[in-house]
Amino acid sequence: VKGIVFSGSGLDRAAHRRRDAAWLRERLADDATRVLPFWRLAPLVRTGDAPRLAWATPALLEGREEAPAPVFLGVAGGIAHFAADLSDRPEPLAEFGFDGVAHFPDLRAIAGLLPPDEAAIAAQARHVVDWHARHGFCPGCGERTHVQDGGWSRRCASCSTEHFPRTDPVVIMLVLDGERCLLGRQPAWPRPFFSALAGFVEGGETLEEAVVREVAEEAGVVVSDVRYLASQPWPFPASLMLGCTARAATREIVVDRSELEEADWFTKDEVRAALAAPTPRLAVPPPMAIAHHLIRAWVEGDSSAA
Amino acid sequence: VKGIVFSGSGLDRAAHRRRDAAWLRERLADDATRVLPFWRLAPLVRTGDAPRLAWATPALLEGREEAPAPVFLGVAGGIAHFAADLSDRPEPLAEFGFDGVAHFPDLRAIAGLLPPDEAAIAAQARHVVDWHARHGFCPGCGERTHVQDGGWSRRCASCSTEHFPRTDPVVIMLVLDGERCLLGRQPAWPRPFFSALAGFVEGGETLEEAVVREVAEEAGVVVSDVRYLASQPWPFPASLMLGCTARAATREIVVDRSELEEADWFTKDEVRAALAAPTPRLAVPPPMAIAHHLIRAWVEGDSSAA
Repeated sequence: VKGIVFSGSGLDRAAHRRRDAAWLRERLADDATRVLPFWRLAPLVRTGDAPRLAWATPALLEGREEAPAPVFLGVAGGIAHFAADLSDRPEPLAEFGFDGVAHFPDLRAIAGLLPPDEAAIAAQARHVVDWHARHGFCPGCGERTHVQDGGWSRRCASCSTEHFPRTDPVVIMLVLDGERCLLGRQPAWPRPFFSALAGFVEGGETLEEAVVREVAEEAGVVVSDVRYLASQPWPFPASLMLGCTARAATREIVVDRSELEEADWFTKDEVRAALAAPTPRLAVPPPMAIAHHLIRAWVEGDSSAA
Repeated sequence: VKGIVFSGSGLDRAAHRRRDAAWLRERLADDATRVLPFWRLAPLVRTGDAPRLAWATPALLEGREEAPAPVFLGVAGGIAHFAADLSDRPEPLAEFGFDGVAHFPDLRAIAGLLPPDEAAIAAQARHVVDWHARHGFCPGCGERTHVQDGGWSRRCASCSTEHFPRTDPVVIMLVLDGERCLLGRQPAWPRPFFSALAGFVEGGETLEEAVVREVAEEAGVVVSDVRYLASQPWPFPASLMLGCTARAATREIVVDRSELEEADWFTKDEVRAALAAPTPRLAVPPPMAIAHHLIRAWVEGDSSAA
């Protein structure tokens, strides 16, 4: 599956450098190093017709020793890349001279407009920046934790436990019944927008068992023959979307109203039309969502989604 | 892929009951309800020739209102199942009358001997019991959190943030080069034990990108054509193993000594022999590990692991 938004960053994460404090210090003293500012989980993006990430130099970090430590993202073309959280500043655009040339848009709104490699870098950065923002304390003892390893772990100052960014696996599945597929609509989504069903993988179950459980819970449909198709990082805040198809063994739908407003079967013709343009009955997710690719692969007869 | 240990519990998790406090109270007042005791992350198991989980009745929980709340696991045959953490008791076998009839063995040591459905229930329970044991405080503000929703979330008493059990996706991959496969040995593993390479999926990468990155980091080998084969819950403490194959694009191995002691190419004949019995050059993981199934599927020519 091609064109998964938030994949393909092109950065070498160079994980062996994360514990190399001297190397990280050198890079942060090098004007060639690129620093991506974040503010309240939004990346800095250049204004203008073709949005691009707006990279700053490490000069941005001067005098910010008390602020969250920058996160080392990786290396490309010999140049180190970091992310820096400026959320402690009330007006960073003015303070750092970005007014009029860049802004902090919601990543979800801008991702499809960014070059794919830049969207992927922003996803990596948002995932880790958000984790730091919400993990300043040790869940084991309640004391303060401190950033280490170039932003890839935190250590408790009291009990010394190391904590690592969490990534939440989510199954998202297109349930197929011959020439029909099952789509659902959450209460917050405007009619006629529908998408594939989805839910978090829980402890003690396989990806396949999670698919079976979630479809039964949300729509009352029994499925079998789960097939993995593709995955997508989804940094809102920390998901790994695991895209699958499954075969329906029953047809009757019983919607769990705490999860979905409605769910229904749609024919391949209905879905094909909605992929071209929303119809009165159906609008499907845009290419930014992995659900779009699951749906498109089925409609276009990709054998791996048979 | 059949025979994945820790899958196939047969319990209906009945997630809609987790927020039904009255129903949970009723079940915990019913002598037919089954409670699986845990002690320092080990499940209670009957002693004897054929190990089985040793279920207690809710009477076990009397007088334990200050102890960790029981975790609702699900329903089977109309009977509710819970897990209860007795780690606060110094000698629970004697205190609760289990001496001589049951013990608390390491789940890793006993899992392959338990009936598959019981191993899966124990995995689900261990995953969540462990999470509670290590998440008594809010990572956002450091205050105490309290169990809610039948043990499936915790809420901060101060900032009201809800926290959910984490599940860590891990890629484990058999790298193939025609009739050879790449296996590695961690420093702690005795010679000649080798297994598939593995590592945590990070934020901002697909499952496929995680496979490529981990193989490059650990063994210096470039891979492509990643294919997902099967998954396994691995509650030590909270992993979801995502088993894949990948095709080698380079052959030279450069081992990262911080991860592996050695890595090497093994022929299909060498691996086939080791599956039957350890050889002087190679011992492979037992059927309890998903790596075993990746290796076996390749040796036996399963087309999905081509």
